[in-house]
Amino acid sequence: MILLCNDDGFNAEGLRVLREELLALDDVLIVAPETEQSAMGHAITLTQPLKVRKVEEDGEFIGYAVNGTPADCVKLAIAELLETPPKLVVSGINRGGNLGMCALYSGTVSAATEAMIMGVPSIAVSLDTYENPDFKPAAKFIRKLIPQVLKKGLPEGVVLNINVPPVAESEFAGVAITRQGKSRVIEEFDCRKDPRGNTYYWLAGEMLFEEADDGADCVMVAKKYISVAPIHFDLTHYPSLEKLKDWKFEI
Amino acid sequence: MILLCNDDGFNAEGLRVLREELLALDDVLIVAPETEQSAMGHAITLTQPLKVRKVEEDGEFIGYAVNGTPADCVKLAIAELLETPPKLVVSGINRGGNLGMCALYSGTVSAATEAMIMGVPSIAVSLDTYENPDFKPAAKFIRKLIPQVLKKGLPEGVVLNINVPPVAESEFAGVAITRQGKSRVIEEFDCRKDPRGNTYYWLAGEMLFEEADDGADCVMVAKKYISVAPIHFDLTHYPSLEKLKDWKFEI
Repeated sequence: MILLCNDDGFNAEGLRVLREELLALDDVLIVAPETEQSAMGHAITLTQPLKVRKVEEDGEFIGYAVNGTPADCVKLAIAELLETPPKLVVSGINRGGNLGMCALYSGTVSAATEAMIMGVPSIAVSLDTYENPDFKPAAKFIRKLIPQVLKKGLPEGVVLNINVPPVAESEFAGVAITRQGKSRVIEEFDCRKDPRGNTYYWLAGEMLFEEADDGADCVMVAKKYISVAPIHFDLTHYPSLEKLKDWKFEI
Repeated sequence: MILLCNDDGFNAEGLRVLREELLALDDVLIVAPETEQSAMGHAITLTQPLKVRKVEEDGEFIGYAVNGTPADCVKLAIAELLETPPKLVVSGINRGGNLGMCALYSGTVSAATEAMIMGVPSIAVSLDTYENPDFKPAAKFIRKLIPQVLKKGLPEGVVLNINVPPVAESEFAGVAITRQGKSRVIEEFDCRKDPRGNTYYWLAGEMLFEEADDGADCVMVAKKYISVAPIHFDLTHYPSLEKLKDWKFEI
């Protein structure tokens, strides 16, 4: 059984498209946040209880919605809800890339990290666009990748952080094994007044490309490559960069 | 000016004891969460606006309370609230250790990481107990450490994750330069029924010591050493382990 999680919430399109695609491979169960949890980093919920809603659609049990973070979902699924551990956790498909330093803030990545900590191989998948996302090409890539992940195994402590450019399948430039780039969001706060005169702030900001190095995830996705970054809880795990070069990726 | 943040909230004792101690060194400003934000990891708030409350006590302006995460506080402080960047960010003193894999979940550490990402040197400080914490010995250690941090500087991209054993000053075994250990919490969920018969879960669990290696943070704190771990957004930054051995630590 493959366990799916995400940070955009149980009903997010990226998760559902991925589920449909992976049903061709194996049993699939979703344990995902009830509501959007973007940018939750590796948060876990200690101060509130976690409520779990069993979800059936058209009479079929498809998973559990949890009022918690992505990491909560994976912890609860593996430690409590599932009778046997999944063979793989896939987190995504996220709406928006998780590239460069943004991986640090990513709930999508944290769900995969949590699975790895608990001894279950895992991958995080993001589509690098917020506008009219078509998740299907990314979902197909993941369906073809999974048998290889299961056959070869992942190095201990390593999660694959996969970012897919928002193009049609025929336009993928290829697959690039990458390292986490240094690009980051430069903060800007949008300062406003509420109707009672109180000041409040919205976090905004733009991605700053800090490098043009061909090894970096953000650079390769901009060139329409699917980026496969082996990350560690120490983030980039350099030995895996070489090992993954031997893999054969199908698009 | 030294900026203080934490994840236990603006009024937490550990933060206040640290502030009192550091006022002997420099101007100190607090920008901290309005409420407890433990285990928030590197979460940032994208879906709600951030409200900021200017805090005065006994007629003196001491800082801002923010309805956000530790990382939000640091972002907002440096990007918006302060006219000039602080010379140092200190996050803590946290109630409870941030040792081994727990550093990944730590809001205390994430505030320091955020400062580092924004180019400001930073340290995270935690006291390894939840019971009757006495923050004073840790605060004094930090006061004596800061001039050295400012004089020598931190290696690029490195944050100090400091964990202090809960003992009297006279009982400190010394200062140990450590690496992030592998110890982690093994999850247990406490499953209950609410008055309407719905199931809910509390996350519980115990720390599992996975190693007895003298280089690990958790091992040294158990031996009553103050643990100073140079961490990276790639977590352990090995070159700094050697460099920090040349520092002279006062207790």
